[in-house]
Amino acid sequence: MTPPSSFADSLIERTRTLGHPLCVGLDPHLALIPELFQRGTMAPGDPDTVGSVEEFLEAVIDRIAGRVAIIKPQIAFFEQLGWRGMRMLDAVCRRARDAELLVLLDAKRGDIGSTADGYAAAYLTADAAMPVDAITLNPYLGFETLEPFVRAAREAGRGLFVLVKTSNPGSGDLQDRDVEGEPLFGRVADGLSRIEADLLGSKTGWSSLGVVCGATFPEQARRVRDVLPKALFLVPGYGAQGASVQDAVGSFVPGPNGLEGGVVNSSRAILFPEIARAASRATTWELALDDALGKAIDELGAAVQG
Amino acid sequence: MTPPSSFADSLIERTRTLGHPLCVGLDPHLALIPELFQRGTMAPGDPDTVGSVEEFLEAVIDRIAGRVAIIKPQIAFFEQLGWRGMRMLDAVCRRARDAELLVLLDAKRGDIGSTADGYAAAYLTADAAMPVDAITLNPYLGFETLEPFVRAAREAGRGLFVLVKTSNPGSGDLQDRDVEGEPLFGRVADGLSRIEADLLGSKTGWSSLGVVCGATFPEQARRVRDVLPKALFLVPGYGAQGASVQDAVGSFVPGPNGLEGGVVNSSRAILFPEIARAASRATTWELALDDALGKAIDELGAAVQG
Repeated sequence: MTPPSSFADSLIERTRTLGHPLCVGLDPHLALIPELFQRGTMAPGDPDTVGSVEEFLEAVIDRIAGRVAIIKPQIAFFEQLGWRGMRMLDAVCRRARDAELLVLLDAKRGDIGSTADGYAAAYLTADAAMPVDAITLNPYLGFETLEPFVRAAREAGRGLFVLVKTSNPGSGDLQDRDVEGEPLFGRVADGLSRIEADLLGSKTGWSSLGVVCGATFPEQARRVRDVLPKALFLVPGYGAQGASVQDAVGSFVPGPNGLEGGVVNSSRAILFPEIARAASRATTWELALDDALGKAIDELGAAVQG
Repeated sequence: MTPPSSFADSLIERTRTLGHPLCVGLDPHLALIPELFQRGTMAPGDPDTVGSVEEFLEAVIDRIAGRVAIIKPQIAFFEQLGWRGMRMLDAVCRRARDAELLVLLDAKRGDIGSTADGYAAAYLTADAAMPVDAITLNPYLGFETLEPFVRAAREAGRGLFVLVKTSNPGSGDLQDRDVEGEPLFGRVADGLSRIEADLLGSKTGWSSLGVVCGATFPEQARRVRDVLPKALFLVPGYGAQGASVQDAVGSFVPGPNGLEGGVVNSSRAILFPEIARAASRATTWELALDDALGKAIDELGAAVQG
């Protein structure tokens, strides 16, 4: 059996080809689903709602396939719809992977021992119940608890994005606290160095150990980059959360086709532009989505290509 | 509308009546499912496996109903079975609540803003997709991110157990780091004080804000008790992880019927005693489960009643 290709290599090669690091976040807020796709009451308990969201997300995937390297479904919005929401997430992820989009599941999981094994078997191993290409993880339980995910990443060619410095205003409550002269998020970054080295891709040299570093805190992101020179950055907070495009790529470094080193996520600005939400015809909706997508691609493409 | 009864009041009243604080953890390790319930290949991808686990857990619930106050399904073991596993978890939780068992979902969720709203709507609100009585949460993203859960706890009478000091060997990697003279887990406990006060039950005075404090670290648990005198403790690590029964109730305080202030979880020792795993007749399996359950109840009952 040939070893699986590394997640980092796949991601970086695709972003180089496309010329931009945009990741489209799939956060299906029920209140924002475009009129064109609404069915039934749109309450979470109505099975019609699940069908409505599925139809919407499938249309989005068909529209963005070939134009971005990666999508990031936020699992909470699917769990909110109960087990039918999880079945729908499964279908959406399979459709995306069939369309050659990488899928990064934003699940922020973290647990101990055999429980962490369970999460890895759910999403990351070669025979996972609902296979995705990468997942977000929470480090609070300790570095040892990341091991089952690291093993799956190595064996099945998956990626891991560990929360380091999140984009929300209150992220400093714990992450910025001073731990013997260094903020806690820096201590987390330090602890990830060994895993970074363990998951280097043979083609690009980038590691399949990634970190989540919000665009809203560019200075902290550069600090994390110093500690983890080969880690992929998942940068949330660009667009709706108000960070600038320069801040969003602040942790990127020069590569063969411009700045590289991670992906910048945008969810709401692409999924729910005002004109797309109110569109009464499919063609209008498609044009509005294309427009929002094109704008984000152009902006990020310009930022990395200088 | 009368306000919902508080989770803490319900839990403490039930443990007082039963005379012990045992919580039965539902961690359906596929490799440990008793022979009697095995069907198909028992591989995670086989739909027969889900049926097998469901039948096993329903038999467990029927056996323990009326004898314990609360059960703790570990969601990773259900996610491992894909969306069918989530549908099965939904059925198991409904059966347990119908049998008047409180359900504490061990999900260790945590996310920002509207995503945290999504998780609360999935499990905690009055019209949640898969309603449970309480949930475990991860605080790494900051105290503000707990707010949607606190709101649901107040409005729907649910409980929250925030990770403070976990039971695993590597929990010290971050949790024990010194933050200006206090370990990080102590800083987390400090930050929860306001929520503790916000969720006090009117009957017992206990708070529906709980904490996870492993039985394997009794000294740290007493420290957290000093900071949070009214918080319920979820104590994992008793039984399989090797902590003594005295350590497990080390954070409990005197109440009308003995020591109280939380629940002590045991999963594997009750679900998978050797004799029950190998039983070839339903009656033998039932007796073996009853025996393991009775032993844990007697041991914890003696510990709290002195």
